[in-house]
Order: sequence, then structure tokens, then C-alpha cells
Amino acid sequence: MTQSEFVPGGTVTTPKGFSAGATYAGIKKPGENVLDLGIIYSQEPCDVAGVFTTNKIKSAAVVVNQQNLAKKGKVSAIIVNSGCANSSTGEQGIADAIETAELVANALGTEPEEVLVASTGVIGVPLPMDAIRKGIHRVLLTADGGHDFARSIMTTDTVPKEVAVTEKHSGITFTIGGVAKGSGMVHPNLATMLAFLTTDAAVAPDFLESALRKSVDISFNMISVDGDTSPSDTVLLLANGTVQNQPIGGKSPFATVFQEALDKVCIYLAKAIARDGEGATKLIEITVRNALTVDEARRAARTIASSNLVKAAIYGRDPNWGRVTAALGRSNIEVVEPKLEVIMAGIPVLKNGRPLSFDRQTAVKALGGKEVPILVDLHLGTAEATAWGCDLTEQYVKINAEYTT
Amino acid sequence: MTQSEFVPGGTVTTPKGFSAGATYAGIKKPGENVLDLGIIYSQEPCDVAGVFTTNKIKSAAVVVNQQNLAKKGKVSAIIVNSGCANSSTGEQGIADAIETAELVANALGTEPEEVLVASTGVIGVPLPMDAIRKGIHRVLLTADGGHDFARSIMTTDTVPKEVAVTEKHSGITFTIGGVAKGSGMVHPNLATMLAFLTTDAAVAPDFLESALRKSVDISFNMISVDGDTSPSDTVLLLANGTVQNQPIGGKSPFATVFQEALDKVCIYLAKAIARDGEGATKLIEITVRNALTVDEARRAARTIASSNLVKAAIYGRDPNWGRVTAALGRSNIEVVEPKLEVIMAGIPVLKNGRPLSFDRQTAVKALGGKEVPILVDLHLGTAEATAWGCDLTEQYVKINAEYTT
Repeated sequence: MTQSEFVPGGTVTTPKGFSAGATYAGIKKPGENVLDLGIIYSQEPCDVAGVFTTNKIKSAAVVVNQQNLAKKGKVSAIIVNSGCANSSTGEQGIADAIETAELVANALGTEPEEVLVASTGVIGVPLPMDAIRKGIHRVLLTADGGHDFARSIMTTDTVPKEVAVTEKHSGITFTIGGVAKGSGMVHPNLATMLAFLTTDAAVAPDFLESALRKSVDISFNMISVDGDTSPSDTVLLLANGTVQNQPIGGKSPFATVFQEALDKVCIYLAKAIARDGEGATKLIEITVRNALTVDEARRAARTIASSNLVKAAIYGRDPNWGRVTAALGRSNIEVVEPKLEVIMAGIPVLKNGRPLSFDRQTAVKALGGKEVPILVDLHLGTAEATAWGCDLTEQYVKINAEYTT
Repeated sequence: MTQSEFVPGGTVTTPKGFSAGATYAGIKKPGENVLDLGIIYSQEPCDVAGVFTTNKIKSAAVVVNQQNLAKKGKVSAIIVNSGCANSSTGEQGIADAIETAELVANALGTEPEEVLVASTGVIGVPLPMDAIRKGIHRVLLTADGGHDFARSIMTTDTVPKEVAVTEKHSGITFTIGGVAKGSGMVHPNLATMLAFLTTDAAVAPDFLESALRKSVDISFNMISVDGDTSPSDTVLLLANGTVQNQPIGGKSPFATVFQEALDKVCIYLAKAIARDGEGATKLIEITVRNALTVDEARRAARTIASSNLVKAAIYGRDPNWGRVTAALGRSNIEVVEPKLEVIMAGIPVLKNGRPLSFDRQTAVKALGGKEVPILVDLHLGTAEATAWGCDLTEQYVKINAEYTT
């Protein structure tokens, strides 16, 4: 019997054995309740898995973490700063990222290889190492510190994004927690997606890696705010084994349970990021059903979710299925037009490839909700995928254009 | 000696032997000087080449034209309507497109196979055949009718787009003319790109086809207003041979001259479309230089030109090179960060992968022009490509969201 539950008020420190904390180090502009430096810590060294940006331009933190993870060692801490991305900063940037890890290792009594780093904020500006050196010693690690940590990684995010899911299954209980920051744009640069996940389960490193990739593929890789990726995008998952279960491997009876819990955490955070896209007023959920392959369903769902025309139509509560089918058509997947069915916000608008008559006012009202589901049924195969995006508003343009004028 | 010149006031009827005309048939909403049905005609049947949308959802006109062109016959006329796209209209749509060609053929005394059709406007609504039947007979074909024709294909385009280039070369003189409509959004549906090109040169059909594909590749395929493609996108080129030259083939001494003139016409029209993108205030020209391959240069230039973040930054006159390099990075081409150079509106902002200091006010002023060139030099190879786009403004969102609210 499986019981999977969201933990009320859950965060990255909800799994046993993790603590976290944050401070204002002076990297961001000062302001009320501003935090810009956070640390997650586990006394028990953790197995770790990471997924990083596919952008050819990578930030110093991504380069250093990838080298570190290649050594297959354990990890005890992650330090994250907001306000400066430490990207396009050359060799100095790499040296600064390494020094940051060393400073944390000294403070916590661990090895530098046991510390991962992440940065988000302005590109092309060196990390203010003085602020970081002083700030690290002001971070107080507590068992409830996940909430402060979640706030310390925010940029133009309007709300912190935190979650935890507990699984009770055949006598073992474990928890997966996570925090993320989204599609905030930091002057003068671009959105960075960061997510930090923790679990108190013991998980075999290979399975930890493959489970994370699978979850990221159906969650963070399926959200689109504006189609841009950042040099800093990072997802890290730490497993400290505090619940002392037999490590979960790919063939373990708990593998599916763990995967499902991790999916749940990642999808929750991914939706929170899409919902909080810059200037967004709505979450759009695109499901493409009965495609020939999962890859085709994914491609179609993502293309529709990232279409400016679809996003602007949803903002305007316009049941404009023509923009949905046009985005579908250019996603270059197999489509047989006379089989096509589209349902927008519960209103059937297209069946057998032909427009259905519907009451326009009812449709406009349905599209007025905070969450707008769009279902595209290809009626060709059995594969399905879901992508999430947000609407495109004048406010998005304002946020991203107003820096210098 | 080659002499290539833009013809002042040039249009699709500037090449000898072409006439055109337009009328208001009642397909669009009525208004001052509204035209919605246009015909281009050549008494001498033409060789023809066409390039059509890659969208998997194709309009009836695209389907019918593609079948027609496969027969490799000659073409005498093109009829175009705006106000209705005749797309997602099933078998009735196909029948209506064929009937439209037949009506024109009867009126002009040619065969239906000699008539091509194009439609732009609302998706999912049948062609108003009564209006078209009556309208065809009201179209007056004149040698100066290209200007009216150019207006009749407009949707939310704010200006007609017309051009002609004359080539004088070793005793022969020929002209290529063209009109296009761009990225207007037609309630309730999406942008369609149409371009109709004419030449009085005799051109061998195979070379006509390959020359058109080459020109389209470096012009219409390199513009991006919002990344969406339409089921109706069509480029047609008619060559009526009126100047009675030896037909130009791929190995003809005039092949290069013809290609260059066609490139010039297509690039002029493509830039006109990008400049007139919905809500746009600026034309952005992205040149990617010294890439390893032309394909990589093209991919990078197009990715940068279609980045919402880059487009919003240019709107805000923000010399935000971080968004340019981030878009470059995700275009998945070979980039060596320490070699990278970026010049925005003439201001060097990045060299050897590192930020340059520049006077912010000077940069903001330079970005205030109506045309903003962005040069990205990869310093890796010798390949180059240019793409065009426009800025992203609040007005774009308004235009595309306001239909129903």
C-alpha cells in the first residue's frame, strides 16, 4: 500500500537530516527582508545527482559543479547566491566559484569537493567575494531554514517556491523536499531556473541520477516562459540516507514509489515556476494525447506552450484554436488534420479537424480562470505529454524593456 | 558590366507583360479604400516556381497550388483574397479553391491549371464564394495595377510592400518585381506571409525553382516576428520571358546576375515584413560572422532574432549583450566563449568573451534608431548569415490579446 502526501508547509529541510539558512550579504540591492546568500547542509554526506543547462555558454558555477560531480564523490552542502550570476566572467569567475566552495567547506568542516555552488543574477560582473566571505559566517543553519533559503534564491520571482512530499510504503517512510526559483529576469540579464531537491531516503547513485533525469524531463524541461535558457540553469538532488533504508536502486521494489514522489515534487515546482513567469496572470497546461510517440507528444506540447500567439490569446481570453493548431503544425510531428480534436478550458472547439460552434461568452468565461488547460487529441497513437507555460502580457514586455529608458 | 537598380515606385507589374488589379469583394469588413481581392495576370503564360509553408496543417490554397505545380505546366494568373484563409475548411475548402481558379480561368480565357490561388485571413471559415464570384468580374487589370494588388493582400500590415529591381547586363535588360504581405494578425487567427514575384526574363524552369529556393533561404526564411508559421505561407515567382532572352539556366552567364537581382528583391521584401511586424517600432538585423558553417551561422542568427528577451531589450534600448549571448548559446552551434565578440548598434560590448566598458548613454542613444544592427563574431571559421526581426512591444501583446475582451 502506498501513501503519498504533500507535507503542509513542506520545503527543502523537511526531509530528515537537512538544515538550511540564509542571510543578506549585500550582493543584491538592499531592501526589506532581502536575502541573497543561502546554504543547504546535511551532516551526513549525500549521494548527489545534477542536471545542468544545455546552453553552450555556461556559468562558472555550472562548470565547477560539473567537474565536481564527475568525481562521483559525496556532497554535504550547496551554497547559492542571487544578485550576481558569475557568468561571462572568465577564469576569475571559475576561481571565485572554487573559493566560495572552499570558504563553505572551512566554515562547515568538510572538504571543498563536498560543496556545490550556484549563482543567479547579473551576467558579466565578478562575484563580490568580500560580501560572500563575510556573508557565509552570518548564515545560521536550522532545521526549518528551508523557507529562508527559498527566499534567498529569488530574483524577480514574486513568491518563493517550496514543496515536500512524504511516501509511506510497506513500512518505510521517506520524504523528498525541494525549492526552486524561476523565470525572474535580473537586471540586466536573463532568467535562470534553479531547483534544489533533498531526500532522506538512501538511493543508489546510478538510480538517483536516472530518476532525476526522468523527473526533470517531464517537469522542468516541459515548462516554457519565453523559450530562453540561461547559462546557469541547474537542478541538484541530494540523498542523505537518514531513514536508513536499503538503498533504492533501479530494481528495488521502491524504485517506482521513489520515481513517482520525485515526479510529484518536480512537477509541483515546475508548475510554480510557469505560474510565476514574468508578467504572467495565468498558468497554461497543454496536454497532447494519442500521439505516435512520446517524443512527438512532448515536442508538440512544448511548441504550443511556447507560442507567443497562443500565450497572447490566452491572456486575452480568446478561444483561438487556430493558433493552437498552427503551433502544432509547425512542431513538425505527425498530424492527420481530419482526426484532430482540440478542447480549450473544457470547451470543445475542434473535432475531426473541423471547427465546432460554441458559445463565445461561455468560452471567454472559461478562459478567465487562473489555470487554462488545453487538450490536443491527435487520435493517432497512444503517447501523451504535458507542458506548462504562462500567458504573454504587456507586463512581460515592460519588465524586460524598461531597464534603461 | 552589371547594373542593378531599384526602380522607383516599382511593383509586381513593373516587369514587362504583367498586369494586375484589385477590388473590394466584401470578404473583409468594409472601410475606406479597403481592397480584398486581387489578380496578377500575364498574357504570355509563365514558367513558375513556388515555395510553401512547412507547417503540417496546410490551407486549401497551398494544397491546390502544390498539386498544380507538380504538373509542371505554365501559369497565367494568380488570384489572392484577404479576409479569409480558407484553412481548416476540409474538402469544401479544396473545392472552393479549385472553383476560384476555374472562375478566373473562365474570365481570362485560360485553363484552370494556369491559375494559382492564395488566401489569407480568418481560419476555419469557408470562403464566401458568392462574394468571390461577383468580385472577380470587378477586377480591372492594368499595367500599373501592382499597387492596388499590393494593398488587396494586406491584413494588419500597416504599409503595402512592393519593389522592383532592373538589371542591365551585356545588352539584355530584365526586371524582377514583387509584392508581399507580412505578419499581420487577422482575427481570430495568425500571421501569413505571402509574396508574389514576377520577371520578364525567360528563365529555365529548373533554374527558376533553384534560384527561388536560394533567395527565399536568405530572405523570407531569415525573418522572425514571433516564431510562428502559418498554414498559408506562400512565395510564387512567375517568369513570362517577354524580353525574349535566351532562357537563363544554371550554367548561363546570366545565372549569377539573375540570382543576385532575385536576392535583392526578396531581401527587400523580407526586411519590409520584419520592419512592419505587429506592434514593432524597430527593425533588428542580426549578423553572425565567422561561424564554422553557414548552417550554424543561420541557426544562430535566427535564434537571436526570435528571442523575446533580445527583442524586448532592443525595444527598451537596453545594450543587453547577455541576452544575445544566451540566445546564441542555446542555438546549439559551436561557440568558444573566449573568442566571442559582440557589437550592438555599432557599440563594441563584448570582446574575447569578456564585457567591455562602454558609455551607457551613448549605447542607449545608438539603440534608439529605427534599424538596430547586432554583429556577433564567433572568430571560428568563415561562414556568415544575416537574420531580421523586430522589437517586442506592449502593442504586440495588445494586438494579439484584445480580440474578445
